[in-house]
Amino acid sequence: MKLAKPIGWAPRALVFLTLAAVGAFLWSSQGSSFAADAPGDANEPAEATRTEAEGADAADGETDGAGDSSVAGESASSVGRDTKWLVAICWLLSVVGSITALWFARKFYLWMMEQDEGNEEMVEIAQAVRDGADAYLKRQYKVVGIFFAAAWLVLMLLSWVADAQHPLVPWAFLTGGAFSGLAGWFGMKTATWASSRTTQGARNSLNEGLQIAFRSGAVMGLTVVGLGLLDICLWFGALWYLQGLLGFEMSLAEITVTMLCFGMGASAQALFARVGGGIFTKAADVGADLVGKVEAGIPEDDKRNPATIADNVGDNVGDVAGMGADLYESYCGSILASAALGVAAFAGNIDLQLRALMLPMMLAAAGIGLSIWGVYLVKTDEDTSQKNLLKALGKGINYSSLAVAGAALVLVLLLLGMENIGLFVSVAVGLLAGWLIGWWTEYCTSDEYAPTQGIAKQAESGPATLIIAGVAEGLYSVWVPIVVIASAILLAFGFSTGGAFGDADKFALGLYGVALGAVGMLSTLGLTLATDAYGPIADNAGGNAQMAGLDPVVRERTDALDSLGNTTAATGKGFAIGSAALTALALMAAYVEEVRVGYERFGKAEVAEVADGEVVKLNKRAVAVKHNGKVETYLVMPKGRSVESKNLAKAVRDVDSGEPVIGVNILASAASGLLVNNETATIPDFIRLYDVTIMNPAVLVGMFMGVMLAFVFCAMTMKAVGRAADGMVQEVRRQFAEDPGILAGTSKPDYANCVSISTKAAQKEMMLPSLLGLTVPIAVGLVLGVGGVMGMLAGGLTSGFAVAIFMANAGGAWDNAKKYIEAGNLGGKGSDAHKAGIVGDTVGDPFKDTSGPSLNILIKLMSMVSVVFAGLIVKFAWDLF
Amino acid sequence: MKLAKPIGWAPRALVFLTLAAVGAFLWSSQGSSFAADAPGDANEPAEATRTEAEGADAADGETDGAGDSSVAGESASSVGRDTKWLVAICWLLSVVGSITALWFARKFYLWMMEQDEGNEEMVEIAQAVRDGADAYLKRQYKVVGIFFAAAWLVLMLLSWVADAQHPLVPWAFLTGGAFSGLAGWFGMKTATWASSRTTQGARNSLNEGLQIAFRSGAVMGLTVVGLGLLDICLWFGALWYLQGLLGFEMSLAEITVTMLCFGMGASAQALFARVGGGIFTKAADVGADLVGKVEAGIPEDDKRNPATIADNVGDNVGDVAGMGADLYESYCGSILASAALGVAAFAGNIDLQLRALMLPMMLAAAGIGLSIWGVYLVKTDEDTSQKNLLKALGKGINYSSLAVAGAALVLVLLLLGMENIGLFVSVAVGLLAGWLIGWWTEYCTSDEYAPTQGIAKQAESGPATLIIAGVAEGLYSVWVPIVVIASAILLAFGFSTGGAFGDADKFALGLYGVALGAVGMLSTLGLTLATDAYGPIADNAGGNAQMAGLDPVVRERTDALDSLGNTTAATGKGFAIGSAALTALALMAAYVEEVRVGYERFGKAEVAEVADGEVVKLNKRAVAVKHNGKVETYLVMPKGRSVESKNLAKAVRDVDSGEPVIGVNILASAASGLLVNNETATIPDFIRLYDVTIMNPAVLVGMFMGVMLAFVFCAMTMKAVGRAADGMVQEVRRQFAEDPGILAGTSKPDYANCVSISTKAAQKEMMLPSLLGLTVPIAVGLVLGVGGVMGMLAGGLTSGFAVAIFMANAGGAWDNAKKYIEAGNLGGKGSDAHKAGIVGDTVGDPFKDTSGPSLNILIKLMSMVSVVFAGLIVKFAWDLF
Repeated sequence: MKLAKPIGWAPRALVFLTLAAVGAFLWSSQGSSFAADAPGDANEPAEATRTEAEGADAADGETDGAGDSSVAGESASSVGRDTKWLVAICWLLSVVGSITALWFARKFYLWMMEQDEGNEEMVEIAQAVRDGADAYLKRQYKVVGIFFAAAWLVLMLLSWVADAQHPLVPWAFLTGGAFSGLAGWFGMKTATWASSRTTQGARNSLNEGLQIAFRSGAVMGLTVVGLGLLDICLWFGALWYLQGLLGFEMSLAEITVTMLCFGMGASAQALFARVGGGIFTKAADVGADLVGKVEAGIPEDDKRNPATIADNVGDNVGDVAGMGADLYESYCGSILASAALGVAAFAGNIDLQLRALMLPMMLAAAGIGLSIWGVYLVKTDEDTSQKNLLKALGKGINYSSLAVAGAALVLVLLLLGMENIGLFVSVAVGLLAGWLIGWWTEYCTSDEYAPTQGIAKQAESGPATLIIAGVAEGLYSVWVPIVVIASAILLAFGFSTGGAFGDADKFALGLYGVALGAVGMLSTLGLTLATDAYGPIADNAGGNAQMAGLDPVVRERTDALDSLGNTTAATGKGFAIGSAALTALALMAAYVEEVRVGYERFGKAEVAEVADGEVVKLNKRAVAVKHNGKVETYLVMPKGRSVESKNLAKAVRDVDSGEPVIGVNILASAASGLLVNNETATIPDFIRLYDVTIMNPAVLVGMFMGVMLAFVFCAMTMKAVGRAADGMVQEVRRQFAEDPGILAGTSKPDYANCVSISTKAAQKEMMLPSLLGLTVPIAVGLVLGVGGVMGMLAGGLTSGFAVAIFMANAGGAWDNAKKYIEAGNLGGKGSDAHKAGIVGDTVGDPFKDTSGPSLNILIKLMSMVSVVFAGLIVKFAWDLF
Repeated sequence: MKLAKPIGWAPRALVFLTLAAVGAFLWSSQGSSFAADAPGDANEPAEATRTEAEGADAADGETDGAGDSSVAGESASSVGRDTKWLVAICWLLSVVGSITALWFARKFYLWMMEQDEGNEEMVEIAQAVRDGADAYLKRQYKVVGIFFAAAWLVLMLLSWVADAQHPLVPWAFLTGGAFSGLAGWFGMKTATWASSRTTQGARNSLNEGLQIAFRSGAVMGLTVVGLGLLDICLWFGALWYLQGLLGFEMSLAEITVTMLCFGMGASAQALFARVGGGIFTKAADVGADLVGKVEAGIPEDDKRNPATIADNVGDNVGDVAGMGADLYESYCGSILASAALGVAAFAGNIDLQLRALMLPMMLAAAGIGLSIWGVYLVKTDEDTSQKNLLKALGKGINYSSLAVAGAALVLVLLLLGMENIGLFVSVAVGLLAGWLIGWWTEYCTSDEYAPTQGIAKQAESGPATLIIAGVAEGLYSVWVPIVVIASAILLAFGFSTGGAFGDADKFALGLYGVALGAVGMLSTLGLTLATDAYGPIADNAGGNAQMAGLDPVVRERTDALDSLGNTTAATGKGFAIGSAALTALALMAAYVEEVRVGYERFGKAEVAEVADGEVVKLNKRAVAVKHNGKVETYLVMPKGRSVESKNLAKAVRDVDSGEPVIGVNILASAASGLLVNNETATIPDFIRLYDVTIMNPAVLVGMFMGVMLAFVFCAMTMKAVGRAADGMVQEVRRQFAEDPGILAGTSKPDYANCVSISTKAAQKEMMLPSLLGLTVPIAVGLVLGVGGVMGMLAGGLTSGFAVAIFMANAGGAWDNAKKYIEAGNLGGKGSDAHKAGIVGDTVGDPFKDTSGPSLNILIKLMSMVSVVFAGLIVKFAWDLF
């Protein structure tokens, strides 16, 4: 191995980059302190500005729409010079960060490719896995391509015909999907190239095997974060700097929510990758186990088993590509949602808005740099133990997390100043929450701790008690992640608002804090994903060693790597679920911003032809008016106790949508808070507009729908695995029956057919659950409206999170309980307890690798679909609720 | 059998009663039409009255506290004469209804006791089961007694020292628990007396066995509804008619919410009965199966098995006493919650309030009469088939349900008039929803339909695929009940308000409609519970036949009865869950009324010593003032956009709780809606006061806590079964080992010791989950406040409902899949598929009989605890959120 050289100079480059960044900051923040001295930018800038503006409104009864709208509709031209520079520098640094990630990914890839590939048989086996993975991914991308084309068409129709969203949304959607697909492709390519090299490395030493597997995992990690941040930078650059060229004029709010829509591309890609990959891998796994291990009695990964290559392919498509797409989505989603919420939080002060927008991007960029540093921290002596390996991985993650916290402190101070220092706590809380959930997941699923050992013990009374114990432990295990996430939400919100929980003016700031918590949790993704993707590579290396019939010591070493991989995979799964929950929450909050933009578009479309000053009813909740040639949309707040309020409600109720409303005094109604300008409305205003309260039947029913969606989606993926595995069982049985030479070891089984069966089954079976996840949120929105959608998102998030953790932990614990027995405990291999353990493992397979992880996607997908279709819902939802 | 005589005259008595009721109604409704002509009682009385009052307030700036409070604080003396008579008649009819139920229960009991008990061995076996059940129940009631004493003390402290609730609440709590315990005791006594008589009946004919088992089940059903309604009637009678004598002066709102607290007694009793009974029965069942059936290879219910008596005792304590206490709670909870909501819905018109209060009680009374009629409808020819038996049961339920719908129409028209006819639809929707959920449950768990057959088919590939299939089908099966309940909520709310979903003035009316849906669903409980309690009696009869070594044809007949019982039990379980969900929802709405009363008490306590006209801050959300010697509490609405609103918020914020607030003009602030009089505040006002919106972090975190509670509670009960079963396994093994004569059939096993082990384990293991369910709602309330509590209730309800259905249906399907295989399909008894089926059945046991049903209790218990401790939360919750 040639490790010495790359380790030598790379940290130096990083130090240089960091110094450059800090230098640029110090320079630009000098400028920013000028801006901070400007009037109206006092201690609590957003509130102060808004309060003053409103105080003026209320006092002299004048609601100047033009004045109001300039606040939010500000374009690049009206931004202070210092902030312009600051934004430019931040943007450039983010671009540099993303390119650095990609550059290091390439570097690790090239380094891995230089390593020895092993003997001919090893190469051949690796080639078969590679071919299978390629075939799967090509087919998957074909199906996904068709879906994307169709969805693109729908979005185009929505924006051009129904005028329900920005014309750029379909394109944003496409790039999100394309970049995510690219990351998956690169990651899987790397993983499949790396497996035989890892095996070969393990022939030399445990450490060498670790290094190859881990660096290859880092390729995936860095590709995901690099492409994710790059896509965000490119879109922001285009929309901010080139909007004149592109012929659009967009407010900062519009820019951020349009960018948010690119998350749906990533979301859809992740859906297919996770669900399809999950079905593929478990169909192959269950099929291979049931016929090979149980019926024919041959060991795992035996080359006589026709499904063994498919099983190895499955590890790559499920755990590498699927996990990568999942976290790519969380990564982009959290950054985009916090950008949108940052813009909302500092409404009325475009300088601060831009700084708030840059903060998550800068955090991501800093996280990339520190992740790369962390990758280099993972090194051990040549003759090391497994415990030391784990320690080395932990060291990398812990040090870079701490460093990210430090970077966050600096970034928050430089960008948003001492008065928003609470946002740093939000980021730190997110980091800590991720760490805690990962740790708990390990505790619940590792055979070193009581829960898994307790489950294994139940195997002595047979499979039934083992299953009961696993289900009970899995259900029980949700408490820590829920308490952690709940505390993180309260702390992130509380610290960012200074404890002002009930203050409507600071509400968006609090949600921005929560979203930053998600960004913080995901900032070291480059590294955590590396430890995650490392697992399946090590697993494949073991398969390779077994099939190539290498010296048992090699299999022992790869088993040690695999076992380490299981631990990191468990941590990774907890982390993926935790980040999905926080991201989904941030998206839910950002959804409200989409509703705002939806009303903006709605108003513009409806009053285009109307005379100046005429008030037109949009729907029962909004009116629009043209004021000095500019369209303004006003939200009609729910009927209150005053006579004026009742009169207004009656005036609006009595005309049809699209008709002029008679006798409404916009100025007076706005002054008394009965009408709220859409552009300056707070998130609580929208919540009140739609009565998104728990006792509202539409919201409550929405919650029920969200819970239902989580359960049914989970059930569908599980049933899909059953059906797909059934097909695999038939095929393996057929091959064994038709050619007895296979079991005798004299003829080669038809691996490719098994791969093809799993591939076809995965593509077919992922359709129904995917359609469910994509259409139910739209249907709920059209029937129950915005309130129903938010109820659904909350119900889906809370229950989906719990079910996902239950599934992941129960499955992981059964897997390791079996391994615990295999390690010689409770009777060891071949005992009755072991047989019970195998039943538990098989039950746990779809739990932990298909249904559980698919729920991560679902809870984000629901939010993303709602975000993208918000304009449609605003315009066309049933008027009853 | 002596069936002819009782069937003969009973319907005549019923016809007489019904005629008397209708006559009394016609007479009294004449009076009521006078009342309806009175001024202020127009088409939409509640709204009209309120609107006028407020219009006046707003117009002349006068908020006359005395005038306002007379509206809600009206006592018996100010009620119109006609309404007084109507209430008296309704009350008497309800008392008659409840006593009729008890009278018929006694009649069926005496009839059953007259039947032949069978031969000596049968009597002996039945006696052993009886002794075991007695021992269990005595111990259970001892533990529960201690708990009740402690809880009573806490409640006394709360009301006397902290002054956080009405002094009658502790007593209401006690009677609720006592009546529920009484119902459980009678039901179980009857069931244990009935089993050997059913066996003896089955020796004669299938029909005779059915009649004895079913009539004995009806004893349970009628005892539950009779005692439930009687308790409600007694409390209402005491509080309404004797309040002068008792020395309390209470408003109607206070009366209904105080009565609501008696539901917590029923709730606590149900908790212990369901959880304890569920653990008992499954510990015995799993223990008996694992050692007896699997290890020793003896058949089920073999008398050589030491745990077999415990198993039979378990059927009684779990399925009879547990189910009875569960539905007793739902029954009382739904009536009490709708009474409270009815009073809230018609605030401002005490005549209508009283009528709305009487409606659920009258519905219950009518339901009792028609249930008894339904019991008599269940009859068949002597030589009938099983199919005909099922048809006979179905006929009884369907006819009486239809009749209840008819009665509801008449009652709504007579009590609340044509303008509230929508409430009839709410009742009918509830009835239909219950029927649909029951039907779906049967579809999902009966081996005649695809889902269970599909699960059974998977047994051919072994236990793992069987488990996966069962979990998948169970998760999938939640969709119909969720859609049904969601639709029922929307329809019940929509019809009762005439589609005015967004109208704050009609909000309570809509929730009243939802609560009436729950009452409708449960109105035929006397009958549905009879079909439910019939199951374990038939099951025990089978055990008796087996142990007594009777002719196989007897066992065949009891098996047929048991199989019928399984179908009705499945339907009953679906029904129990569905009604629990609607009841919990109604309780959640009623909770808000408790908050109102909590503020009333809070205000009275704080300003007792203060000068007239001085405004005192209670907490950041409320102030109180003494006005002409009368205390008024005002809610401080969240800060709005107006200057006045901000000034008010600042004035309140700047002083400590308990201090006078300077410069607040109550009259002006009330006129502009910034302060809302607690007595006339609507439910949406409270929702807004506490910002119970989905994006409020406290509410969202509350939702997470609710979901967590459901999962962890479920896990704890499941773990408890595992531990308890383990103890049983040890004991059975010990007995077999120490005395080989047991298996040889020469010596008698020690049945009592097994019963004692299960009893002790159940009492011990039910403690932790019970404490969790009782304390977490209080803790959430104290930390997160009212908003957090409501979030928790919503999260717990939606996810708990889904998990309960998943558990019940998966468990039921596994059970029947095994029976399907045992019936000779897929290899039949002894095949590998059968072995896999047994694993599934064992896994399903705690799912369907312990954890699933316990969740019914949990979702109601959470609401009940919150209701009772609302005063505490209002007064002492952390001020941050």
